[in-house]
Amino acid sequence: MHSLRIGHGYDVHQLVYKRDLIIGGVKIPFEKGLQGHSDADVLLHAIADAILGALGLGDIGHAFPDTDTATLGIASTEILSDIYKKMLEQGYEISNIDTTIMAEKPKMSPHLSRMKGNIAYVLNTRPGNINIKATTTEKLGFIGRSEGIASEAVVLLSRIEKESQK
Amino acid sequence: MHSLRIGHGYDVHQLVYKRDLIIGGVKIPFEKGLQGHSDADVLLHAIADAILGALGLGDIGHAFPDTDTATLGIASTEILSDIYKKMLEQGYEISNIDTTIMAEKPKMSPHLSRMKGNIAYVLNTRPGNINIKATTTEKLGFIGRSEGIASEAVVLLSRIEKESQK
Amino acid sequence: MHSLRIGHGYDVHQLVYKRDLIIGGVKIPFEKGLQGHSDADVLLHAIADAILGALGLGDIGHAFPDTDTATLGIASTEILSDIYKKMLEQGYEISNIDTTIMAEKPKMSPHLSRMKGNIAYVLNTRPGNINIKATTTEKLGFIGRSEGIASEAVVLLSRIEKESQK
Repeated sequence: MHSLRIGHGYDVHQLVYKRDLIIGGVKIPFEKGLQGHSDADVLLHAIADAILGALGLGDIGHAFPDTDTATLGIASTEILSDIYKKMLEQGYEISNIDTTIMAEKPKMSPHLSRMKGNIAYVLNTRPGNINIKATTTEKLGFIGRSEGIASEAVVLLSRIEKESQK
Repeated sequence: MHSLRIGHGYDVHQLVYKRDLIIGGVKIPFEKGLQGHSDADVLLHAIADAILGALGLGDIGHAFPDTDTATLGIASTEILSDIYKKMLEQGYEISNIDTTIMAEKPKMSPHLSRMKGNIAYVLNTRPGNINIKATTTEKLGFIGRSEGIASEAVVLLSRIEKESQK
Repeated sequence: MHSLRIGHGYDVHQLVYKRDLIIGGVKIPFEKGLQGHSDADVLLHAIADAILGALGLGDIGHAFPDTDTATLGIASTEILSDIYKKMLEQGYEISNIDTTIMAEKPKMSPHLSRMKGNIAYVLNTRPGNINIKATTTEKLGFIGRSEGIASEAVVLLSRIEKESQK
């Protein structure tokens, strides 16, 4: 196994009324929220998928089936925390993560710093190793029509070197 | 040239009647299949594009033009096998590959293990270096309406070290 | 900070009349062009975002706000050039870049070589470290209906080694 592993994640959820909008572990004031089995945190799900992908462990739907009532409504920070433990068990740490939130609205910029802090905390890495971009799709497609929000993430994991091997 | 190279591939094909559905080299029982010049294996095409991209060799449309009658209806495992040879010629091997199949239906999970085996075999790498995720787009967009299936892939290639250099 | 950093960028612009179509710094003859604050060069924006993402510096919308009249109508090669300087300041260089242009039309293939040359020149790297793929989305979605053009990019940056450390 090589010392660096690449992963990629993509997630999308529908925007619906009567749900909170939780992205990157931050509750964002908005008239709609994302529909899903957990809190539907589209950014954390993309990151979770990217890490599982880099480790060769399938995907979040396999690791956390949406038929499992134990995970109904849970915070996705808990899901990501669980995946962090899997990563440690496999002997890997975050090298860096780059992500994009694709949403026509609301504005993500006021919340990016807190999202970054949340993700860095759960994954036990420096905030400088986490990057979050936000973009609209210029009113095009289902994102442009505000029917949903998507996120994409790439990760680079590196094997943790044992002290004795350094 | 650096010892690691990154590549990314995205492919999409229309779902139509009277075509087999071939994904990851597996024939999946379904009422529709993917339209295309070859067998339209959307997952193998994304991987092929990602490897060509990492090598700086353009894309699959350039390497295998759909105006070439010699490739009409061929299995995409043959295309990927050909690209594996190009990779070897350039002195690279698969570090790891992470992929996502985006399809509203049918269920991909029963077939992921065989797909992974097929890809690892063609690319002469361990199945643990190949990851396949499957996701819906929550009924949104052309994938959500089952008009087509898309796939995305990222690859990390590493330069093959000569025995004498080890 | 590790010696390699990964980044990912995604950008989309609407196709409209009375605008030039500029992609990869090349003016492409076409009846429509891309709408945007700058020249709306969707490929260079995806690359710019991927580099900023790898460096942990946010995104192009943050670095070059579209409310800034100083950047109104500027060539995106200037934006990318500015980001190249930021990358140098952080002590990184391009390892390699792989990109995809998603457009139903016009044909990109006649222009890919010039685009590659432009990007390599601005980023001070060999053309062999830049790859550009072009794909349609098989008439599906907003790209398939020619309402817009999207681009995606992944980058691998490597830390510049000091002479004395080699």
